[in-house]
Order: sequence, then C-alpha cells, then structure tokens
Amino acid sequence: MTDKINLADKFALFDTQWSPKIIANVDDYDIRIARIEGEFDWHSHQHADEMFLVIRGEFVMEYRDRKQNVGMGEMIVVPKGTEHRPIAKNGEVQVMLFEKSDTRNTGDGAITSRTIMQMERI
Amino acid sequence: MTDKINLADKFALFDTQWSPKIIANVDDYDIRIARIEGEFDWHSHQHADEMFLVIRGEFVMEYRDRKQNVGMGEMIVVPKGTEHRPIAKNGEVQVMLFEKSDTRNTGDGAITSRTIMQMERI
Repeated sequence: MTDKINLADKFALFDTQWSPKIIANVDDYDIRIARIEGEFDWHSHQHADEMFLVIRGEFVMEYRDRKQNVGMGEMIVVPKGTEHRPIAKNGEVQVMLFEKSDTRNTGDGAITSRTIMQMERI
Repeated sequence: MTDKINLADKFALFDTQWSPKIIANVDDYDIRIARIEGEFDWHSHQHADEMFLVIRGEFVMEYRDRKQNVGMGEMIVVPKGTEHRPIAKNGEVQVMLFEKSDTRNTGDGAITSRTIMQMERI
C-alpha cells in the first residue's frame, strides 16, 4: 500500500530544472514532476502520449504549427509522434507529467546533454 | 492535437457525485475527474492501479487495515487488487483520477446501482 504523496513536499526535494523525478507509478506508467524554465529542445515520443498538468506557473507548449499557453490548473496531452517543446518564459513552472515509464524526456532522437538516462525516484 | 483542458471549467460542467467523467486520454489510460461526497462502496480493481489526486477538499481512503487522509495537492495510488473505499465526510471533494480506460468505477465485483456502465466524456 502506498502512502500519500504531497506534491509541495516532493517539489521541495529538488531544485534542478528540466530533470523530471518519478513520484509514483500507475501500472507501467510514471507520475513525474518537473521544474521547468526557459526553452527545452524540440522532440517527440513516437509511442507515448504525454500529459502535462501545471501545478504552479504557466508555460507555452510549442508545436510546429501552433502554440498553446497552459496555466495553473490546466493540462494538455501531447499526442504520440507530435513534435513539441515546452517554453517557460515567465519564471519557473512546476508541472506534473503522466506517461509510459520508458518515455525518455528528450524524446526518441539522439541522446543530448539534457537527456536523463536514469530518472530519479523521490 | 489536443486543446488545453482547464480543470475548473471541466468540473463546472457537471454536478453529479460519484460519476467520474473522462477529460483526456494518455494512450489506453483515462484522465477522469469526479465529485465525491459521503461513503462509496468497498471494491477493488484486480488488474489496475488507480491514482487519486485531490483538486479541492479532502477525503479519507479506507483500506481493510488502515485509513489514509488525502488533502488538496495530495495524491495516492491504490495498488491493483487492494480493497478500498473513498469517504468524504467534510463536504464535496474534487478528485482527478488516472487509470486504465477499462477500469470500472465500482471495481470487479457485481454491477451495482453506482456502476457507471458508459462513462461520459466531457
């Protein structure tokens, strides 16, 4: 039986931006939280939809053909195979993610300096 | 491409308690929201973990051997096969759920008056 998880307590455990942490699992899916600020790299996940729920702040999800502003209490699902990049220009944003556990943060392309090879569980 | 989803806007679309609504999908999983108040029935899901995130209010998840209070900004995952029942004694609670799309709200047992056979998408 899992204990309850307090999101604010979990966010307090780390400062690093663009480094999602796993806080729980639902079957073979992760619930991750991340601090994001600035621009991330374009990427896509061929086999996984990816959900973003904003816990604090606001960011823009940029697609090749449009942009979507997402604020606190709002969420989006980036469909599998869709190129995207999150951009947070108004300070740091706290997001919760829900996605298949083998989903790499930088997508299916080449491993970059931003790729988290071994995602931490907190 | 999905549009963004505002949780408060979605909750404003219905009043019925204990009647989860699907607001998005991540692969074969549902993101559902529900209004709950009072006691639900004991049940379990043999093949599905079930996540509850409290958006507003607080409730108690009762297991056969213990109880877990869950407040706003907190979440729990009920592991597959674990008997549980949510109880909301201090007014209505708004929860978000992540679970496999074929997960029945009243569990794997007999269909009851509270079973939602065709879950609405809003």
